[in-house]
Amino acid sequence: MNPVWKRVFHRLHRAPLISKRHQSGCAEHTSSSASTRSTSSKPRLLVSRLYQPASLRDVGQDSRLAGEMTCKSQRLMQQAGLIHPFNPGCYFYLPATVRSMEKLVRVIDQEMQGIGGQKLDMPSLCSADLWRTSERWDLMGKELLRLKDRHGADYCLGPTHEEAVTTLVAHQATLSYRQLPLLLYQITRKFRDEPKPKFGLLRGREFYMKDMYSFDVSEEAARQTYETVCQAYIQLFTRLGLRCVQVQADTGNIGGTLSHEFQLPTDVGEDRLLLCENCSFSANVETLSSSTTNCPQCKTGALVESKGIEVGHTFYLGKKYSSVFKATFSNPQNKPVVTEMGCYGLGVSRILAAAIEVLSTDEGIRWPGLIAPYQVCVLPPKKGSKVEEAAVLAEELVDCLGEVLPRLRGEIVLDDRTQMTIGKRLKDASRLGYPYVIVVGEAALQKPPTFEVICQQTGETLFLSKDGLLDLLGKVETV
Amino acid sequence: MNPVWKRVFHRLHRAPLISKRHQSGCAEHTSSSASTRSTSSKPRLLVSRLYQPASLRDVGQDSRLAGEMTCKSQRLMQQAGLIHPFNPGCYFYLPATVRSMEKLVRVIDQEMQGIGGQKLDMPSLCSADLWRTSERWDLMGKELLRLKDRHGADYCLGPTHEEAVTTLVAHQATLSYRQLPLLLYQITRKFRDEPKPKFGLLRGREFYMKDMYSFDVSEEAARQTYETVCQAYIQLFTRLGLRCVQVQADTGNIGGTLSHEFQLPTDVGEDRLLLCENCSFSANVETLSSSTTNCPQCKTGALVESKGIEVGHTFYLGKKYSSVFKATFSNPQNKPVVTEMGCYGLGVSRILAAAIEVLSTDEGIRWPGLIAPYQVCVLPPKKGSKVEEAAVLAEELVDCLGEVLPRLRGEIVLDDRTQMTIGKRLKDASRLGYPYVIVVGEAALQKPPTFEVICQQTGETLFLSKDGLLDLLGKVETV
Repeated sequence: MNPVWKRVFHRLHRAPLISKRHQSGCAEHTSSSASTRSTSSKPRLLVSRLYQPASLRDVGQDSRLAGEMTCKSQRLMQQAGLIHPFNPGCYFYLPATVRSMEKLVRVIDQEMQGIGGQKLDMPSLCSADLWRTSERWDLMGKELLRLKDRHGADYCLGPTHEEAVTTLVAHQATLSYRQLPLLLYQITRKFRDEPKPKFGLLRGREFYMKDMYSFDVSEEAARQTYETVCQAYIQLFTRLGLRCVQVQADTGNIGGTLSHEFQLPTDVGEDRLLLCENCSFSANVETLSSSTTNCPQCKTGALVESKGIEVGHTFYLGKKYSSVFKATFSNPQNKPVVTEMGCYGLGVSRILAAAIEVLSTDEGIRWPGLIAPYQVCVLPPKKGSKVEEAAVLAEELVDCLGEVLPRLRGEIVLDDRTQMTIGKRLKDASRLGYPYVIVVGEAALQKPPTFEVICQQTGETLFLSKDGLLDLLGKVETV
Repeated sequence: MNPVWKRVFHRLHRAPLISKRHQSGCAEHTSSSASTRSTSSKPRLLVSRLYQPASLRDVGQDSRLAGEMTCKSQRLMQQAGLIHPFNPGCYFYLPATVRSMEKLVRVIDQEMQGIGGQKLDMPSLCSADLWRTSERWDLMGKELLRLKDRHGADYCLGPTHEEAVTTLVAHQATLSYRQLPLLLYQITRKFRDEPKPKFGLLRGREFYMKDMYSFDVSEEAARQTYETVCQAYIQLFTRLGLRCVQVQADTGNIGGTLSHEFQLPTDVGEDRLLLCENCSFSANVETLSSSTTNCPQCKTGALVESKGIEVGHTFYLGKKYSSVFKATFSNPQNKPVVTEMGCYGLGVSRILAAAIEVLSTDEGIRWPGLIAPYQVCVLPPKKGSKVEEAAVLAEELVDCLGEVLPRLRGEIVLDDRTQMTIGKRLKDASRLGYPYVIVVGEAALQKPPTFEVICQQTGETLFLSKDGLLDLLGKVETV
């Protein structure tokens, strides 16, 4: 007997009180919904009404995608009506994707605010002067999208905001050492003129990024903050159920002296990583000389190559930007001292696509449960089938689940496309990856009613009473 | 006796049971917080740690603001550390503003989803070809921010997305009449190259806008949808406590045949409205001929002029875009028919600033209660004062409020800057506009303790017991 079954079985023979409460809650709701079925004040989410156009042109036939390489997550997301191509590297995020993104943003907010991060929002239009001051206007080359305003002034669309945030902090004449560490972050749309946008949301020209910037009193304090942020990143990926490795990395055009990438190991990754067989050492290939074959840390372990998708990047910046823009604080002796900075990126839309890339099967999307667009899909029987009368039970089940488990309100959809067979709708549900699919069929008409539950993340199929179902779904984590 | 006092007074002599429950909840919490005061696992929000740099340069001294006209909301928001200028028409939104914006977005989401709106997210980079097809590439003139990518292709930063959303819908070959009305909306950053950005967030070059697009089977259905959206707008402004007038408007460069503006009447508004003294008629001056002096609706009423800030704009578009981009649906006879469209904008960041403009005093910000960044500020006594010992009570009060009123968790800040006098901190609290300011002073040391509560939105000052306070704050609406 699998553990979930065991718990459910145990519950069924154990908890008359809770079961009674559930039953009464549902019964109450059922009677009210029966009397007002057609004009229910609690609208059910109906699959037929969700804008998830799965019949958009096939990827292979769309000429605008020519030149863009595809990968599993891009293919699955387009087929399922989650994204739709607009320009090279620019996508429509369709409603289910927006739901998932909003959940991901909430998880990131929780983790960043949990370590004292404060959320702000910086302009996209950054003046060329600012970027010339940091000497990045020329350094960034063609990746920077540049434009002129009506007065002829030069701007770029900021792909990152070290210059902007440092001038902001520099403007505060009275910043005190007591206010540090100061951690400011934003989650906004960023722009990068990729030479060859590809892999859907994995490498686009428009994407969502979380960028955080830290200001500290000393190098020691800054390194402590750096470590705290890295721990928060690891916790974030743990909560999402994603295996992530933190690898030593190059500082690139951001600068600074210490840098790590957070990589999800996978076959389609564009980054090449070297992981030590013996110890915890791991690094991006580009940081090691090509002659390195043994681990530089334990000296004995062989280095094994793996591919990865970079989903986060951290930099210890020191005074690189703060000295240029004069971002100072007052020390206890009331003297101005230049702050020590760090910066920390997370590719938000990239995390979403990368998670789909690593978790999905070839046929269907599998989400990190916490950020699935909807948690539950309920399938009533086909119209005209022998068990058609179970359709009412399906509707009642949806209402009941929302009533008894308030956290799942808005998370349960009813696949009302009852002109389609259960099999066809199950296939769609598998493609879309709802964590729980509940089939309301013949068994639901038995006394007591039984429901077939497909747990798409584990691949298990369970047959549960209503109480068993409530027990199982009551444990679903939401954000 | 004012009504709140009356209720509170009544409660105090009436409800030992509820009072006991409250007391036990608080007492429980108090004892645990007393034992773990310094290492509390529930961090309190401390004013000293909030990034709200009120000491940023004065508006008048900042050369980058030269040429930008200022108004009350801009001045108050900059002084309070809510926004900071970056480029002309581009602002940093500081953390308190982001909190308020996120709340406003949630209210808008509720209203739009309440009428069936589905949220998506469209790219900012729009290809010139698309805008040439609708003939708006030239029409938009210098307001459109234009750029070239590394391959020399022309793009604009979309200030509005009729072209984009219509092509999206047109791509779905199988859109059925059963799926209509289809209402798609987004809340994203938009760009407009204003000749003279001014008034802070009221007229910027970067701003947040909610833009919704509707697709219907017929003109009749489309007009019904138009009416539904207008009603949702009116409900939104009612929930925010803002007086809003819906006026007949010009269709401008969006096009279509029917249009309304949603205006907040105020002195600094850039729009001139004519309101009928007799009936409900109201219109933007630009829609009437200059010779019109009597109301065109009731024919008798005189038209009175008022200024207003446009916060929303609705357009019935008909087939203007859907015929160009061939956005069709299948009718019951399975024949393709061109959809009837509408589009509906709300200036999200503008609503925030306009609300501050119309509600605030000259000295302090007043928010729509629902979207105030924080609901409550608790002021402990000055360090070294006679009643310093009440400081512990202030901390306990903050913890207790969060415990008993879970909805207020994260909404209560403690002004721990106890080196400052109560008077000075009260002045700051007034500038920032927390709806409720609680002074924990001498009266809190009495048996039973009494708290001074300043309700900044009504201007009332109340003296309440802890129960009275819980009663008052339990009624605060949050989102």
